[in-house]
Amino acid sequence: MVLTDKNNVIEALSALAEREKIPSATFFGIGFAGVATFGFYDFDDKVFIPKTYNNMELASLTGSIAWQNGKPSIHAHGTTTGADYVASGGHILDLEVGTGSIEITILRHEQKLERKIDPAIQANVLQVR
Amino acid sequence: MVLTDKNNVIEALSALAEREKIPSATFFGIGFAGVATFGFYDFDDKVFIPKTYNNMELASLTGSIAWQNGKPSIHAHGTTTGADYVASGGHILDLEVGTGSIEITILRHEQKLERKIDPAIQANVLQVR
Amino acid sequence: MVLTDKNNVIEALSALAEREKIPSATFFGIGFAGVATFGFYDFDDKVFIPKTYNNMELASLTGSIAWQNGKPSIHAHGTTTGADYVASGGHILDLEVGTGSIEITILRHEQKLERKIDPAIQANVLQVR
Repeated sequence: MVLTDKNNVIEALSALAEREKIPSATFFGIGFAGVATFGFYDFDDKVFIPKTYNNMELASLTGSIAWQNGKPSIHAHGTTTGADYVASGGHILDLEVGTGSIEITILRHEQKLERKIDPAIQANVLQVR
Repeated sequence: MVLTDKNNVIEALSALAEREKIPSATFFGIGFAGVATFGFYDFDDKVFIPKTYNNMELASLTGSIAWQNGKPSIHAHGTTTGADYVASGGHILDLEVGTGSIEITILRHEQKLERKIDPAIQANVLQVR
Repeated sequence: MVLTDKNNVIEALSALAEREKIPSATFFGIGFAGVATFGFYDFDDKVFIPKTYNNMELASLTGSIAWQNGKPSIHAHGTTTGADYVASGGHILDLEVGTGSIEITILRHEQKLERKIDPAIQANVLQVR
């Protein structure tokens, strides 16, 4: 999948998962991000603290597609770099293509995977076996 | 594979390789690391200098499974990010899951691969072809 | 593919693409880089500003193989880390193996993919569908 023109990567992956009925998948990407928002989890306040970077090279993107309550659930991590080449990243809350494109490779798996909230830690955990 | 509860990623991959007799594999992961120890090689003293990070997002994890002297040999590199979103990483000496989980995708290859010490550089090199 | 001895990664991937007539591929790598040159695009001057790092762990490498004007076109992004473990990276202009090796996994796709200059942005964009 190649995304251009300020496409939202998370929304595009969700739409693809619904359209092609992807049971589960792992994906990888590189490209140029107009907006990349990472969240670091605050275990005291139980919220992600967001930080947004603009117009960055997407140095790495790794994620998974699963399902939750009948909807695609996209989990993505990555790193971005700017004019100082220093990498920042983590858990991705939002990702939009910048000038140019983001190339994404989707490795489809035939096993349907679900995500569920683990009540002990209030975190969303992929259910495998 | 989804690991939770302070599981050790390297040990879990070794156990999986033995249990499922994986000839060789490439793996990828994301998640939350309780302990991530990276080693940077000191070519003068011929040792890895370790540095440990705690409670970090695992922004990227890439590695390979091969065999050495009849035992699984796991080689993994990655990057982690903390509350400042800055990425640190390199060659992984140790990796344990933190609160939440680490999701790992294993791409199994049918060719059996071995690692051997290259005497010229005292480094462990994967033998392909 | 395992590269050693100051091999140039981009040239090695191009040669492999020609030799094995790879229609398109995604690749991943880890290892130790003698030379890693990253480019950050200057949209005003329309050139990549290069920065070279030497003797770094290659913490991540993700890229794609396609074709342009009958020649392999390699697009690669990555992160490297040095003795301070801090990650730097982005779009790769050049990458050579250092002491030790770089292990590369190539995921071959059967669809032939081409890259073309998008005249609106003067950027090379992979053509899918």
